[in-house]
Order: sequence, then C-alpha cells, then structure tokens
Amino acid sequence: MTTNFYAPPSAIRGSQVVLSEEEARHARAVLRVSPGDELTVVDGEGGWYRVEVQHANGEQLVGTIVERRRAVGEPTVDVTVGLGLLKKRQRFETFAEKAVELGVRRIVPLRTAHTETDSFRRERVRKVMVAALKQCRRSRLPALESPRTLHETLEDDSVDRRFVCDGSAERTLHSALQAGPRPESVLVLVGPEGGFHASEVEAAMEAGCTAVSLGARRLRAETAGLLAVAAAVHGTG
Amino acid sequence: MTTNFYAPPSAIRGSQVVLSEEEARHARAVLRVSPGDELTVVDGEGGWYRVEVQHANGEQLVGTIVERRRAVGEPTVDVTVGLGLLKKRQRFETFAEKAVELGVRRIVPLRTAHTETDSFRRERVRKVMVAALKQCRRSRLPALESPRTLHETLEDDSVDRRFVCDGSAERTLHSALQAGPRPESVLVLVGPEGGFHASEVEAAMEAGCTAVSLGARRLRAETAGLLAVAAAVHGTG
Repeated sequence: MTTNFYAPPSAIRGSQVVLSEEEARHARAVLRVSPGDELTVVDGEGGWYRVEVQHANGEQLVGTIVERRRAVGEPTVDVTVGLGLLKKRQRFETFAEKAVELGVRRIVPLRTAHTETDSFRRERVRKVMVAALKQCRRSRLPALESPRTLHETLEDDSVDRRFVCDGSAERTLHSALQAGPRPESVLVLVGPEGGFHASEVEAAMEAGCTAVSLGARRLRAETAGLLAVAAAVHGTG
Repeated sequence: MTTNFYAPPSAIRGSQVVLSEEEARHARAVLRVSPGDELTVVDGEGGWYRVEVQHANGEQLVGTIVERRRAVGEPTVDVTVGLGLLKKRQRFETFAEKAVELGVRRIVPLRTAHTETDSFRRERVRKVMVAALKQCRRSRLPALESPRTLHETLEDDSVDRRFVCDGSAERTLHSALQAGPRPESVLVLVGPEGGFHASEVEAAMEAGCTAVSLGARRLRAETAGLLAVAAAVHGTG
C-alpha cells in the first residue's frame, strides 16, 4: 500500500469506517481495492486504523477496523510556525506541503508590516496538506489557521518556547533550542519576503520571544519556514 | 541592495569587474544602477567583492573593486547530497534551489534501481542554483554533477562521513551526526520516489556508508534531500 486514506473522525463509527466519495473513488479506480483487501486510514486527529474492505464501488467504501493505533508518525514536540503571507501563493503551498512532512503541528499565515498581499486560498492549502498527510503517513492533520496579524499571534502565550526569526540575531535557532530544557511546544515566527520590520521583532521580544537567526545565508521566506520546522522537530527530538 | 551579482572568476581582472550582458541588463533596468553606485559581486568560487560602478549601460557594466572578502555566507562543513533523479523535474529544481540556500556544496543526481526517468535538464537546474546563490548571498556556487549511478558515486571515498538514507534504519541522520567527531565533509545519499532498493542500501553500507533514517514520516524525495542538507549543515555547525 503506497498511501494512507483519510477519513475524519465523524466517518468512523464503532468498528466501521466509511470513506468519502473522493477517497472511495481513488481506492477503487487507482488502487483497484476490492472486498477483503486491507488498507490504512488516518482520521487527521491522531487515529490510525488498519481496515478490511467490506464493500467498495466508485462512490462508497465501507470497511471494518481490524487494528487501532494512536499518533503514528507524529513527532513528540508540538511545533507551530507563523509564516508571513507570500506574494507567490505557490511558495506558501510548497511550505505547507513540506512542513506537514517534516512534522509541523500548526501553521499560522501572518499579516505583517512587509506583507504585500492579503490573498490566501485556505481551502487549496488545506488540500495540499491533506495530500501530504496521507503521503507521509502521519495520523494528525496540522491545524491551518486563518491569516492573522503578528500582534494577534503574540497574544497566545501557551507555548513553552517562542522564537522570532531575525537575520541580525547572534544566536541561531539551532543553538537556542539546544540550550535549556527540552520544550513540549515551540512557536517560530518567520517573516515574509523582506523579513519582519525591526519594530515587529521588538514587539515579539517584548512579548517573550527570543530573537534567533537561521544561519549565515538569507533564506527565502518559505525555506526559512521549513528550516524552522526541521530544527524544532529534529533538534529537540 | 537586495541581491548579489554573479561574475565568474574570469570576469575579474585585477581590480576591475566586468558583468555579463544579462547581469548588466538586470543591474541597469531593474535596479537602475548608475556610475558611482556600489554593488556586491560574488564569483561562485568563494570570492566576494564590493564594487563601485564606473560605466553601466544595457549591455555592459564595469566596476572597480573597493573591498574583497572570502567565503562570505559559506558553511564550515562541506556537504554533498546525492539525490535520485525525479519524475517531476520541478521537484528536483525545488530541491536544488533550497539546497543552495541551506548551504549544500555539491549535488549529484543519481541513477538508481527505482529511478523512472533519465531526463535531467542540467542547464536549467544550474540557472535555478545561480539565482539562489545571488539571492541568498552566498559566495560559492555549489557543484552540480552530471547524472551518475549510485555505484559510481560510492567510488569516491574522499569524504569524512558518508550516509545512505533508508526508512528502516534505526538511527536518524541527526543522532548519527551528533555522535563522533565533527566532520569536515559529509555525503548523504537519498533515493528517488520509492527510496533505494535493499541491495543498493547494502552496497552503500559495504562501501562504508552508515544507514540512517530521516525520522518517523515518509518524506518525498526532495524533502528528504532538503532535510539531509539542513541536518548536515546545521547539526554539525
């Protein structure tokens, strides 16, 4: 089996799973699934199920759960990345796809001083994330927030360690994460093209964020977002 | 100044720099550079120059070097990634762009057992890499090899530490890199879609590579390549 299937928790009733029309069509047409076959379903909330197919046609697939597990493919640290909205939507989608693969738990599109667009196709980005979820065999679909301001994002102080990326900071995110106790949750704020305005970095620091750099090179915004996820998931694991 | 300019070493004679027509046009038309302005030029081999413009028109730009530096924006570890050729060329280009930003030193496109294509547009990938070089303010253009087999790649044993990615390996690249002395050079081999064949992993191990995983999720090939660069550059720095 090359991919997992996705069914929200509402599609899982007792020991029965009913796949949506789209997933059923995929299972039937592309993978030629028939009754008696086994497949793997994740519910996007940490539930993982091995399922035996009972009925399958082009419109519906019903299966019986034969094994349940929790949090398959999930990292142990809860990573949120706030990334400035990007002029080229494709680049935000590339970020979202790879951030899911790398283990992000929550994505917050940010409106910032240097943000040049207000356009955000949330449903499209969510679709990319669901495809990545299935492909990379995670069981939890990361949350995708609606665009919000940096200020609104800073109000949430429930996260253990919070960082704001600033090219002029002396310490790197990597070394900052290695210092101090292992966090259960991490927030990293990454600016859009052009980074954060100095006053935004200051506001973030006043709100309790540590300013960090991502190394000696000037990264594109979406590359910076990906390196932040990689550092937070793997540098603390 | 938002970007560096690129001129190969042959375009730097004594204290004079002559930009190519393409770079000169960009400087003139987009950035409206005129005599007396300063700009930054890198030669792709570690040379970094602050240059005062003498003459500039749509076809040529001549400047005088007022400051020289070496290895600006370069990591201290020499990282080579061998990545299987990918069916979707766009994905190899995304890898190449971001690998340059993250600090790779050399990219080797691999022909492997699961490789389904032999098509590789080297000039196009190189262009993406030059654009990334200028944008991220590195001074060294990573080498881009011609496609070669895994076997040919394994013959080069001049690298300090060599790794082959294998989803079933117990140790992660991150923890393997942290164990042992800090290497000066690292090679990471990453398979195409579907990964390496078991016999390829075995051959790599026999040739001295350590088998490592990149975590609990199944990454797309180009995402695996990027995480390998990030881990090797930042996990050893």
